[in-house]
Amino acid sequence: MRLELDRRASVPMYRQLAAQLRERIVSGELAEGYRLPPERELAARLGVNRTTVLQAYQRLKDEGLVASKVGKGTFVTPVDGASSGATGIGMPGASGAPGESAGNGGMVHTIHDVRTEGGAGAPEHAGAPEPSVIRPPWSVLFSDYSNRFTYHDIAEIDRARRGGAGGRVIDFATGSPDPADIPDDLLRAVSLEAFASHEFDGQPESPIEGFDELRALLAEHMRTRGVACEARNVMVLSGSEQGIDLIVRAFVNPGDRVLVEQSTFFPALQTFRSADASIVGVPVDADGMRTDLLEGYCARFRPKLIYTIPTFHNPTGTTMPMGRRRRLVDVARRYQCLIVEDDAYGELWYGGPGGPARPVPLAGMENAGYVMYLSTFSKTVTSGLRTGWVAADPHVIARLAALRRMVDQHTSTSSQRICLELLKEGRIAGHVRDLTAAYRRRRDTAVAALERHAPQGMRWTVPQGGYYIWVSLPDGVRALDLLARCRTLGVTFMPGGVFDVDETDETHIRLNMVRPAARDLEDGIGLICDAVRAMTR
Amino acid sequence: MRLELDRRASVPMYRQLAAQLRERIVSGELAEGYRLPPERELAARLGVNRTTVLQAYQRLKDEGLVASKVGKGTFVTPVDGASSGATGIGMPGASGAPGESAGNGGMVHTIHDVRTEGGAGAPEHAGAPEPSVIRPPWSVLFSDYSNRFTYHDIAEIDRARRGGAGGRVIDFATGSPDPADIPDDLLRAVSLEAFASHEFDGQPESPIEGFDELRALLAEHMRTRGVACEARNVMVLSGSEQGIDLIVRAFVNPGDRVLVEQSTFFPALQTFRSADASIVGVPVDADGMRTDLLEGYCARFRPKLIYTIPTFHNPTGTTMPMGRRRRLVDVARRYQCLIVEDDAYGELWYGGPGGPARPVPLAGMENAGYVMYLSTFSKTVTSGLRTGWVAADPHVIARLAALRRMVDQHTSTSSQRICLELLKEGRIAGHVRDLTAAYRRRRDTAVAALERHAPQGMRWTVPQGGYYIWVSLPDGVRALDLLARCRTLGVTFMPGGVFDVDETDETHIRLNMVRPAARDLEDGIGLICDAVRAMTR
Repeated sequence: MRLELDRRASVPMYRQLAAQLRERIVSGELAEGYRLPPERELAARLGVNRTTVLQAYQRLKDEGLVASKVGKGTFVTPVDGASSGATGIGMPGASGAPGESAGNGGMVHTIHDVRTEGGAGAPEHAGAPEPSVIRPPWSVLFSDYSNRFTYHDIAEIDRARRGGAGGRVIDFATGSPDPADIPDDLLRAVSLEAFASHEFDGQPESPIEGFDELRALLAEHMRTRGVACEARNVMVLSGSEQGIDLIVRAFVNPGDRVLVEQSTFFPALQTFRSADASIVGVPVDADGMRTDLLEGYCARFRPKLIYTIPTFHNPTGTTMPMGRRRRLVDVARRYQCLIVEDDAYGELWYGGPGGPARPVPLAGMENAGYVMYLSTFSKTVTSGLRTGWVAADPHVIARLAALRRMVDQHTSTSSQRICLELLKEGRIAGHVRDLTAAYRRRRDTAVAALERHAPQGMRWTVPQGGYYIWVSLPDGVRALDLLARCRTLGVTFMPGGVFDVDETDETHIRLNMVRPAARDLEDGIGLICDAVRAMTR
Repeated sequence: MRLELDRRASVPMYRQLAAQLRERIVSGELAEGYRLPPERELAARLGVNRTTVLQAYQRLKDEGLVASKVGKGTFVTPVDGASSGATGIGMPGASGAPGESAGNGGMVHTIHDVRTEGGAGAPEHAGAPEPSVIRPPWSVLFSDYSNRFTYHDIAEIDRARRGGAGGRVIDFATGSPDPADIPDDLLRAVSLEAFASHEFDGQPESPIEGFDELRALLAEHMRTRGVACEARNVMVLSGSEQGIDLIVRAFVNPGDRVLVEQSTFFPALQTFRSADASIVGVPVDADGMRTDLLEGYCARFRPKLIYTIPTFHNPTGTTMPMGRRRRLVDVARRYQCLIVEDDAYGELWYGGPGGPARPVPLAGMENAGYVMYLSTFSKTVTSGLRTGWVAADPHVIARLAALRRMVDQHTSTSSQRICLELLKEGRIAGHVRDLTAAYRRRRDTAVAALERHAPQGMRWTVPQGGYYIWVSLPDGVRALDLLARCRTLGVTFMPGGVFDVDETDETHIRLNMVRPAARDLEDGIGLICDAVRAMTR
């Protein structure tokens, strides 16, 4: 056995030695049962310290390639499966490709007789070593995590998106706005301006964090919301959801606790679960998260992170008042608990006379160093652009950027250029003004319809912005039963259980009042209320 | 204590009971040391089975909220930290926000006295309960995974991207092409056509899998490469890298083994590590992965997945011949091991007389059911669009789409529309033809320069397509030393260690010959060769 170690290499000698032995074992050159030279002997032969050989052997043991027998030495282990015999079928004649036979001599090829979709129970013929598997047994191959994943919403959303089969449906379910409210003309105009420009010629890529100019404009926008922010605090994202994913990778260890509003944006829950975090729901009332309970939750659960939607909450439509915001930031800081503020809807403040003041984001509060702020163009312009942003400490931005290198590198330059044009020209402000005025009218229509049609025992939130009205059903009416009935009536919504941390909520439904055509709002709510009334009788 | 269980709810009773008890414990209503009613007694009171109470108590025990003492009953546990006393400082006067005091009575508020960047060693004044932490101690908060992350390349790439400080550098390092080769005019033309169109008005979003028309065109494109493919086999991605990330989430469990070429695309390695996979490198020679060793690796390591770049490999520039491809697909199938074929460079075949035939992707081989194919527009048009695709079994597409719902939902509609226009008009074909002709000339220039200038002991691959030449350095010349010297000479490249699974390679360097200005190729290679020569003396 010829081994060569390079003394001048910066690679530790034991790793060089382990690598060379590994290749010989795996290739079959050192076959099952081969006894490795005693450590002292090999060390002497190679002129290295005995520890070097010890460490190399240990590494191979960790990999299961060799095993020691006390007093007898270190041996190459049998190939997995070959040793048990019972579950493997021999394939000594495995067809090598023409001209390729080097290094394979003497190996016993085995495979497990895994039962698969196509080949279950197929008899084994001695002369037919070819297994009957052509199509992989996908269900066996998927990861545990992805098998645990909750898929309930996907089909629903996709059906709504694609228009579904048959008849017209008044859709309060889908989480995106009425396509008629998408500013196609504005988007066309800014897109044409963006792409007619030669400004980005010779600049095919974007920095990971986004184009500098876009970051600067987003920082400026943050300042108008009352958040101290510079370009270096901002990273452009492919939608704010991506920010949750990156933050989880950057901060959450398996087993870490994450606090969320008891009902919340469910892709966030999926993301926390993907990191094997333990999720704890904090109760919510008409003013959002019950921050009076928060200290108890922090003391009990020592959370790593609080994920919250303090403004125009999804799904409950609630907004945390200033007192709660201060308390949340204060408690989190004292427990060194990170806050992820998801402000996807924050721009959609209905405003107007008589309503409460526009809420300042958590990121704009005193001592908000623990806050990582997320927002998006999805709710103000169109989610199709997949452009959002995170605002946080530059340390955080740097870490997220490094992680992002392995995901999508940066947000599409075409989307960035369109958003840049939208912000640069200030055109987005006019559009948002019109949009929120229309949404306020929708809210008023929806609430009036509820007041007119709702049977006793039905209650609802009155949102000050955003998309959602959260309806509490009368005793005895279960959301899923109601949904089944409503579908036959041509109206649909999201049952509360979808958003519930424990997936147990049966008494709430979420109405996205900005999704159906405005003229259908009253009818749709009337249909739902009638269905509820029928079920309470 | 008032507890209410809803018998008609589909939520199991024990979960209802656990939830109600949890809220009371966390809020402090049931304080430390409170003895829960004996199971039998509570069951009788609520009129439920005793098992229901048992299960609820067990759940609370699992959460650490209660504990049983044999013969004494079940008690609310002390709040973590308060019990130890030594590491916590009391904050009985924690400032509640005005108007918010409900539910907090009787709780002891504590925090850990964690030493932080800002506050290390600050004395604790009895009268100053406010901790001195304003800025979070980020280094403590980052996840173990993100702390283990290898960042070596990030700064390098970013510096190259941004142009760096000072003098002109001949850049063979950055993994993207010469900006002069980006078809700005073509992109401008198709973008303007794409956005002038009203075709997508009222269709603000894309299906998760991408626009149907784009999927169909990509499937058609796959068929021209010899791969049986329909639209339902295709999902549009935000770059092919995203495909690796999604596939890992869908298939890889912690501890699963992944085989890769010993030197490979390092973001793929990062992604496998993020899933806590165990990565094993398979040796590579001038014809790519040593498939003669593969059966041994599969038998030994039982990998879940093989990640490979069979065509115009990054970083080695090698291409697997048909015999190896057949063998790879065959071995993987027999071991029920998935293959991820990363074909980012496959379009960039130099062709021309005398060269080898155009390689068929693994996905186009017989029995390729285990192959998931990834490609991208990044290498043929521009990576700025962040648009790639995966082609695989519809079962896989469905799973990846479901997972993607929590990441970025779908690829930017603006990028998709531009790519659609590029494919629809067949304009991309002409551009790729011109580009590969130019790249072939670059390859010829670079290889001629190496032949002319290289000192003895330097060897290199001669790629048939793609971006990279892989250079083996003479004995005694270490890649990092060479890089340091070359930087002072105004030329840069990637050291092989960056791509090496074991991060131990010191004898190779990667030259991206399509990155520097074409006129600098010969000079740049001359400078590198001179530096090598100087170091071998």
